[in-house]
Amino acid sequence: MSKLSHYDAKGRARMVDVTAKAPTKRIATARAFVRLSDEVLRALPKNPKGDPLEVARFAGISAAKQTWALIPMCHPLPIGLIDVQARVCDNGVELIGTVSTTAPTGVEMEALTAVSVAALTVYDMCKALDKSIEIGPIVLLEKTGGKSGVFRRRHPAPGPLIRRAK
Amino acid sequence: MSKLSHYDAKGRARMVDVTAKAPTKRIATARAFVRLSDEVLRALPKNPKGDPLEVARFAGISAAKQTWALIPMCHPLPIGLIDVQARVCDNGVELIGTVSTTAPTGVEMEALTAVSVAALTVYDMCKALDKSIEIGPIVLLEKTGGKSGVFRRRHPAPGPLIRRAK
Amino acid sequence: MSKLSHYDAKGRARMVDVTAKAPTKRIATARAFVRLSDEVLRALPKNPKGDPLEVARFAGISAAKQTWALIPMCHPLPIGLIDVQARVCDNGVELIGTVSTTAPTGVEMEALTAVSVAALTVYDMCKALDKSIEIGPIVLLEKTGGKSGVFRRRHPAPGPLIRRAK
Amino acid sequence: MSKLSHYDAKGRARMVDVTAKAPTKRIATARAFVRLSDEVLRALPKNPKGDPLEVARFAGISAAKQTWALIPMCHPLPIGLIDVQARVCDNGVELIGTVSTTAPTGVEMEALTAVSVAALTVYDMCKALDKSIEIGPIVLLEKTGGKSGVFRRRHPAPGPLIRRAK
Amino acid sequence: MSKLSHYDAKGRARMVDVTAKAPTKRIATARAFVRLSDEVLRALPKNPKGDPLEVARFAGISAAKQTWALIPMCHPLPIGLIDVQARVCDNGVELIGTVSTTAPTGVEMEALTAVSVAALTVYDMCKALDKSIEIGPIVLLEKTGGKSGVFRRRHPAPGPLIRRAK
Amino acid sequence: MSKLSHYDAKGRARMVDVTAKAPTKRIATARAFVRLSDEVLRALPKNPKGDPLEVARFAGISAAKQTWALIPMCHPLPIGLIDVQARVCDNGVELIGTVSTTAPTGVEMEALTAVSVAALTVYDMCKALDKSIEIGPIVLLEKTGGKSGVFRRRHPAPGPLIRRAK
Repeated sequence: MSKLSHYDAKGRARMVDVTAKAPTKRIATARAFVRLSDEVLRALPKNPKGDPLEVARFAGISAAKQTWALIPMCHPLPIGLIDVQARVCDNGVELIGTVSTTAPTGVEMEALTAVSVAALTVYDMCKALDKSIEIGPIVLLEKTGGKSGVFRRRHPAPGPLIRRAK
Repeated sequence: MSKLSHYDAKGRARMVDVTAKAPTKRIATARAFVRLSDEVLRALPKNPKGDPLEVARFAGISAAKQTWALIPMCHPLPIGLIDVQARVCDNGVELIGTVSTTAPTGVEMEALTAVSVAALTVYDMCKALDKSIEIGPIVLLEKTGGKSGVFRRRHPAPGPLIRRAK
Repeated sequence: MSKLSHYDAKGRARMVDVTAKAPTKRIATARAFVRLSDEVLRALPKNPKGDPLEVARFAGISAAKQTWALIPMCHPLPIGLIDVQARVCDNGVELIGTVSTTAPTGVEMEALTAVSVAALTVYDMCKALDKSIEIGPIVLLEKTGGKSGVFRRRHPAPGPLIRRAK
Repeated sequence: MSKLSHYDAKGRARMVDVTAKAPTKRIATARAFVRLSDEVLRALPKNPKGDPLEVARFAGISAAKQTWALIPMCHPLPIGLIDVQARVCDNGVELIGTVSTTAPTGVEMEALTAVSVAALTVYDMCKALDKSIEIGPIVLLEKTGGKSGVFRRRHPAPGPLIRRAK
Repeated sequence: MSKLSHYDAKGRARMVDVTAKAPTKRIATARAFVRLSDEVLRALPKNPKGDPLEVARFAGISAAKQTWALIPMCHPLPIGLIDVQARVCDNGVELIGTVSTTAPTGVEMEALTAVSVAALTVYDMCKALDKSIEIGPIVLLEKTGGKSGVFRRRHPAPGPLIRRAK
Repeated sequence: MSKLSHYDAKGRARMVDVTAKAPTKRIATARAFVRLSDEVLRALPKNPKGDPLEVARFAGISAAKQTWALIPMCHPLPIGLIDVQARVCDNGVELIGTVSTTAPTGVEMEALTAVSVAALTVYDMCKALDKSIEIGPIVLLEKTGGKSGVFRRRHPAPGPLIRRAK
């Protein structure tokens, strides 16, 4: 259990101390998938501006800034960039979130929070049509910077099977 | 597109007007699954008090109260109860969130937000061991009360395949 | 000074006590104007979906929900509807915010906060082009419900002089 | 449209990436005016401590710290100083807000948010007497530091016409 | 342990379910004391408007509205009134907070949070002079309404020993 | 009064300007005591994992991150570590909070806020058994770093008289 970074010697949850770590540039990218039925996909606006997905994008950007307030052991961080992209696929909506910082700790949780709240927002916008919409998988795609170095997800999580020609 | 409740006649996102609706009792239950490798499962405390999952439970309860601030078109609501339960399975952690209210609109998003943030917290607590942890599926299991009546998810979403004898 | 509702007998600021007031339906509508130069107006997307204004609309809706946290003597309220509309005029952008509730106190501050933060967001989206953009006037247009009855602004505040044919 | 900093090549709103920018000292000063009738001005406490304006000052200071949460594309920033001054004039109240930071991006939005929420608070404190109070203009007076250099507003916006001898 | 209301049968912390409880009028009053040395008391403004204490009062009022977000098992509630009074005594500052609501659960935590944050603010305003300032006792003085009926503190907690003639 | 750091020359409350100060490492430790009757102490879980105190610990950690939003003149700060420990004593619960940062200003208020909100949470968890629980004293134990140097509390505040053998 000693390897779980958020626990002290007595097994009590705690924050990791980053006071003495120098700030370095860090980037994290996460993905969430929202599986949508054909009916819901048809109801999504067809135009390239993709309004419903705009609401989801803004929600994701705003939520990423609140990550430290949502996740108990996360640190408040300066944020250099939050970007959330939403893409309509054949079987749903794919949300890609990228967060970068110059800070003593990483922004994996910020990227994961961005796409999770964006996905919840897609659910909220579509739930009048279909309450059985399924969110997931939500995964970290990549992370650079920091002591633990580069992480790149090897096995792609299922989700967006076929991309629509748009 | 007219069926998407959060869009007006011009296709602009908007809140649904619930001003004139009478408050009624409503309950919603959602589930999130966090798939964990054997290595991470072994590192989770074995005792029945399940500390790491306690952090996740508190995070989920706190986040549910913030749903209206996270999801753009959600209404601030009185909350009667938020309950988040965490169960260790053979292949990960299952989070069940129940929210109830006496209000003019439902608490599906509150239940989904509770389990989503609880799942993100499980990721955060374990990410030092494994950054490829996958969150999902996140689904609404049941909802009662309100004009649209009872919803019960028919096809169980994959996730917790076999329960551990505990 | 006794007429200023937010002061007690000693002149100290305080909240108005609404504990014993019965909830009734209340609506308030406010307007903010953002004066934009021709250069900035030309740079705003020309398409009818009006993206930059979408960001402003979402910001206004989200901010209205936070009114009680921003304005010291405001009460937390259930919100039935928040609607923010953005219109491009010949000399700028007009933002109209409507908030309704069934509550023991009114939502004037919520409507005013919605359009104020929407206006600040328009400034933020355009400030790279022009830092001298002027926000105002911000006024309450109408308010119904509650003991003080109906208010309708008599003298229209200046701002959107001529509407564009769109 | 390429000049609007908050839009990407596809016209989608996004944050500006400041990850790689070095922190430098930056100051911004904004002004908001609240036009008050003689009746309301007389009801404001006459003493030099100016209580109602104290509430407005605190609200402005607190709101400036929340700018990143209110304005979708704003970055969370360290804040070195927030100062809000309130002055009674012949025709209303003038609010001057100054914010400084050592950060990779500026604090114009923080200064504008400070005076805007201070102005909304003045409205809230006085609305029992007069609901037709008009807020505005809200303008950036000056900004120093950062790549774009010094900005000083050339044409003073109308508002506080004549200062009272106090 | 079954008597601790915030624990379920397995000893896991949870919210109390108030969904089915009818809203009734409830009031709670709490007190906090901040012990100040003569040096700090002399430095506090002598005038009756008591500026430093005004900051504390506003902080207490604002914090009371955030009680549900600060205390994990608290419910978000409509608030009818929050009042915080600050009195200078011979040995410090006494803060009295009263909160009332019409709700299915009480506002004891809101009253206690109001005076606690007001007390922390007094510390913050004075800490340049004296870092050994002691906060406490913080107690509930009285609570009316609700199933458990009236509570009145019998043994007055120590703190403000002698009131100044003011 | 000139020594009260949060007041300007006119006696108006203001933030201290830290824009030009270099960030240095700073640590602060605070303590809060919650006096509990024997009845309540017996009802607290006896096991070493101390559940009810876990809720208090999480609440304290989360609240410390919100200090800048709760205390009007506090600066938003990067946080390196927040740690809250809870110990059962013969006459109550002792909460020790430590916060560290690399910042231009100190974290005394963060440490004090952590233990204060943790103490309020202990009250909330136990109030069904005893509403006369007394919180306090809350004191700063130690502070290092920054221009004013080291502070160590000389006279221990009363509270945890006898430690239990655990």
